[in-house]
Amino acid sequence: MLKGNAIIGQSGGPTSVINASLCGVVQAALAATEIQTVFGMKGAIEGLMSDDLLDFSTIAPEVIEGLRQTPGSALGSCRHKVQEADFPMILAQLEKRNIRYFFLIGGDDTMNTIHQVEAKCREVGYELRGVGVPKTVDNDLRGTDHTPGFPSAARYVALSVQQAGTLARDMKRVDQFVVHQTVGRSAGWLPAAAALAKKSPDDAPHILLMPERAFDTETFLAKVKACYDQYGWCSIVVGEGVCDKDGNPVSASTVADKFGNTEMGAMAGASIAMELHKMIRSRFGWRGEFQVCESLPMCAADRTVATDVEEAYACGKRAVELALAGTSGVMVTIVRDSNSPYRTSLGTIPLCDVSGKQKPMPDDFITEDGFGVTERALEYLRPIIGPLPELSRLY
Amino acid sequence: MLKGNAIIGQSGGPTSVINASLCGVVQAALAATEIQTVFGMKGAIEGLMSDDLLDFSTIAPEVIEGLRQTPGSALGSCRHKVQEADFPMILAQLEKRNIRYFFLIGGDDTMNTIHQVEAKCREVGYELRGVGVPKTVDNDLRGTDHTPGFPSAARYVALSVQQAGTLARDMKRVDQFVVHQTVGRSAGWLPAAAALAKKSPDDAPHILLMPERAFDTETFLAKVKACYDQYGWCSIVVGEGVCDKDGNPVSASTVADKFGNTEMGAMAGASIAMELHKMIRSRFGWRGEFQVCESLPMCAADRTVATDVEEAYACGKRAVELALAGTSGVMVTIVRDSNSPYRTSLGTIPLCDVSGKQKPMPDDFITEDGFGVTERALEYLRPIIGPLPELSRLY
Repeated sequence: MLKGNAIIGQSGGPTSVINASLCGVVQAALAATEIQTVFGMKGAIEGLMSDDLLDFSTIAPEVIEGLRQTPGSALGSCRHKVQEADFPMILAQLEKRNIRYFFLIGGDDTMNTIHQVEAKCREVGYELRGVGVPKTVDNDLRGTDHTPGFPSAARYVALSVQQAGTLARDMKRVDQFVVHQTVGRSAGWLPAAAALAKKSPDDAPHILLMPERAFDTETFLAKVKACYDQYGWCSIVVGEGVCDKDGNPVSASTVADKFGNTEMGAMAGASIAMELHKMIRSRFGWRGEFQVCESLPMCAADRTVATDVEEAYACGKRAVELALAGTSGVMVTIVRDSNSPYRTSLGTIPLCDVSGKQKPMPDDFITEDGFGVTERALEYLRPIIGPLPELSRLY
Repeated sequence: MLKGNAIIGQSGGPTSVINASLCGVVQAALAATEIQTVFGMKGAIEGLMSDDLLDFSTIAPEVIEGLRQTPGSALGSCRHKVQEADFPMILAQLEKRNIRYFFLIGGDDTMNTIHQVEAKCREVGYELRGVGVPKTVDNDLRGTDHTPGFPSAARYVALSVQQAGTLARDMKRVDQFVVHQTVGRSAGWLPAAAALAKKSPDDAPHILLMPERAFDTETFLAKVKACYDQYGWCSIVVGEGVCDKDGNPVSASTVADKFGNTEMGAMAGASIAMELHKMIRSRFGWRGEFQVCESLPMCAADRTVATDVEEAYACGKRAVELALAGTSGVMVTIVRDSNSPYRTSLGTIPLCDVSGKQKPMPDDFITEDGFGVTERALEYLRPIIGPLPELSRLY
């Protein structure tokens, strides 16, 4: 039995359920007899390095419990990327605080940090158990069926596209199109999730643009026109990271040469919806709108999927159980055992197999024309995002 | 007792609860013995003029009931503004369909349409009772304490600002600001509602920009800087219609002369958040994001305020009751009888007193520096928007 203290940190951008994972780690660690003090890093690894720590025994249990429904990263995050030069300081801090259990909730980079810290400790003979808890709304983390945070963000996207699509169809005599932008630099899981909004053929969305496929202006505009001809309006959902065949982000496009602003792409990629809006408007003369929700799907605590909150909590709790049982150097994963009824169990993946590798959508999840998703994708998405509301339709 | 048929239409942009008002009108009209057939105008007044009508007796009762939770304008809208030349056609249609009860759900322009149709009918001796049902998320309709649809849209804004503010505070070492844009061309009710998100001084929002006050770049940037110095980050909520002292929309700003695109203002004013983002970024070099939700707060059926849905339904039902009792030429209004407990009753205002007049926020609702709202404003907003979630905070 390894006795000592534990530390937990949150890294990278938040999800709506990252604090549920934190709650899982903290409650399990507080309950463990092997663990004396449970520390939190204020501002991720920066907090550890500057000894800016929180002692969870000073936090009221109801505040810890309330983390399940609290958006953001309650411990704070930082932009510091751990480098070789940081390890002496990190090791010194671990020793000073007698930390033997090391947990980080995060994505790709974060798993790499645990991996390196754990390896360095082994090198110098300092016993430490490091376990990672996955999170990212982008769903592009390897080794897990899906990532906690993705289902809730995906539901936000699907709900928004369904609701704004119903509005847009009703308003088609006034406005002819709507472009909804999602986050997700390299994987199209979030735009793909919008497909769940569609129940009838003329329902939104009509066109999905995913970073897995190269964007071509003329093919896109032809598809938009075909939609309009068929339905009288058009709903488009686009991932912020979509690029053309040369790898140039469409968000930095200078089509029509009206903006000529090379900063566009750097502005968090937030303008691809506006670029598409401009393309459609200048080609067809239609009125329409674009929506850039940016981080809102990552923090909408009132729109979380219940199973996502449960899974996020369970992943946090399992990380502690694994470490207590002697496991180290792994990330907790979600394994899908059955789709109907939806059942999952928890597994692990070595940290070295997670970092530096991304998980785009499989080819057979995307339709041949590149503007939609297949039934296989819907089968994957449906159980984790849940059913969307049935809406009344008069005609 | 005036026997005949009834017609109902929805006009202008939707709200999350405009279909609840439709449900109220339709259910009350179907139950009235004086009314034989209840028609719906497909695509508002265009539907009436082109005889493109829906007979509500053909719609299943559960579909009508489901309208309470359905976003959009289920009957459809149109961009046609009624003109003098339309009235012969409108009158011919009313006569052909023996329509004696005339209801429209809408804003300012819509009330004017009913007013004119009703006056024309009186002129030619055709007995018609016309009653208006208010709606607009902008809350700028005269004669009513608030407008159905505003509370739900306001709650969407307040929730978004609370959630993204919690995220932004936690992420302040990474990103330093967030700009949230709301609709509302001339009145600042929606940005004002975001103030309900603030419980602690460093909570979002820190700066509200409302169209009632002229925008000045340097005063704004100084305020942003002061926020940053105090809290380490800054949350800004801006109404799309904010203008400078000369009345030029900030959304069409050419600050730094990088865009030089005069179409910016015409694009549904959707770029003021991006303009502010650009200003802050180029002045201070901070990272941040902007959010343009556009119509999403007008259709988020899962985020409606329960009393808003009830009031919207009650306004629709009352319109029918008034018409059946012989009243015509009025719009139903909501009268606030008490704030605590929140109690309202329904009243009326003559249609001629509604149209062409708008209701900006009163001066004593806005703080002296123009960047916030007063306790009076909060007292007005709190009961109709409801309490926001309590969130856990670790430090």
